[in-house]
Amino acid sequence: MLRRDDLQNGFFIYQDPELFCFGVDAVLLAHYPKLKDNDRVLDMGTGFAPIPLILSAEAKKEGKQIRMTALELQDYVASVAKKSVRENHQEQQIQVVQGDLKEASKRFGAASFSLVTCNPPYMPASDGLIGTSRAKAVARTELACTLEDVIREASACLVSGGRFAMIHRPFRLVEIFALMRQYHLEPKRMRLVYPYEDAKPSMVLLEGVRGGRPYLHVDPPLVIHTKDHRYTDEILDIYGYERQ
Amino acid sequence: MLRRDDLQNGFFIYQDPELFCFGVDAVLLAHYPKLKDNDRVLDMGTGFAPIPLILSAEAKKEGKQIRMTALELQDYVASVAKKSVRENHQEQQIQVVQGDLKEASKRFGAASFSLVTCNPPYMPASDGLIGTSRAKAVARTELACTLEDVIREASACLVSGGRFAMIHRPFRLVEIFALMRQYHLEPKRMRLVYPYEDAKPSMVLLEGVRGGRPYLHVDPPLVIHTKDHRYTDEILDIYGYERQ
Repeated sequence: MLRRDDLQNGFFIYQDPELFCFGVDAVLLAHYPKLKDNDRVLDMGTGFAPIPLILSAEAKKEGKQIRMTALELQDYVASVAKKSVRENHQEQQIQVVQGDLKEASKRFGAASFSLVTCNPPYMPASDGLIGTSRAKAVARTELACTLEDVIREASACLVSGGRFAMIHRPFRLVEIFALMRQYHLEPKRMRLVYPYEDAKPSMVLLEGVRGGRPYLHVDPPLVIHTKDHRYTDEILDIYGYERQ
Repeated sequence: MLRRDDLQNGFFIYQDPELFCFGVDAVLLAHYPKLKDNDRVLDMGTGFAPIPLILSAEAKKEGKQIRMTALELQDYVASVAKKSVRENHQEQQIQVVQGDLKEASKRFGAASFSLVTCNPPYMPASDGLIGTSRAKAVARTELACTLEDVIREASACLVSGGRFAMIHRPFRLVEIFALMRQYHLEPKRMRLVYPYEDAKPSMVLLEGVRGGRPYLHVDPPLVIHTKDHRYTDEILDIYGYERQ
């Protein structure tokens, strides 16, 4: 059963809550890279396509033209993403493609994008997830693709100087940096996401540049909740809600 | 001309302000590792030995016995450190040694320490520092030792399971992780230090474990100043000042 949610940016999205719904991580990731005019964007493992829909609204707001490919492994999920794109009249901006991100560079050609985004499964497959659906498990654990698959294909799909933006768990940061360097995606920007100002970070936003010069810019902390359990002003701004 | 400063922990330290004085980084680093009873500690590039003196006070407070070797390249600086150790009656706890950290494992023997601390020079030598004294330049830029020297020797000096604690600049984090892994010091803990809650981090605290299993624990943000430019409670606690 599909649910239609308002994205608070002029667009809406269909999701199937029995499979999964996008979370704050997709929203934060979509707002992390700075868009450039004429960006060709690949969103790998797009799910119901929240990231392309948010990027489309951002590009419109900034008066930039971008074209996006939204790649999704699961047939049914991809078909729902297509419905959202069609009903939001974004077919010129977003092409939803059903396919395996492990073959992205073969399918789309090397050096065919200027920006690759990915909100990948966070947990190594060995940790397992017993009792959840296959669709949910593929979204959360590295069953269908590993971190190395994501980084290898992102790099292969990017032009020299192209950007790769990802959100992930901080506990894997050492491995992420090692793989990014291995595949010539130099980590250039990082931002830690803290649930509260005095809590351990739950997520890390990263941007790598293909062939970039080593120098990591670390951004100010991104804090999600105030001490009294409201959203911080920055999160309200990102979600498009009025500040309280 | 030596200046005598109160460390607010029962000890004092002699410093020569014409050369350099220790900063907040040394204080934060000294409070980062959790001390264990019978730790054998090596502080590489100890300067006027603020880190051993702070660790000595901490160990006393926690009722732990630790023995420390404080290694300093520059003769005069090492002699001032010895004077502080002697006048604080810490000769049983702290041995100041004049020598080159690049030869630490040769000098002290492999696997001879359970904890290595280092507040190394932050800037690559190529960036230069024209017009400052040699002593200051050696403390700030990689003239006398590189990041790789520090990490290689720290690893060689540590027992299996021993900890390496360092403070550094966030812009070099990718390189730090790569070198730590290369020398079998798995990064296990990290904490970003932000001057203000909405500022970019100025420093990063790190702890690696020789032969450790890959899993990075990232700590809550360490913020130095409140919005109205006072020290935060955590910094006041670390410095041993009364909360305001």
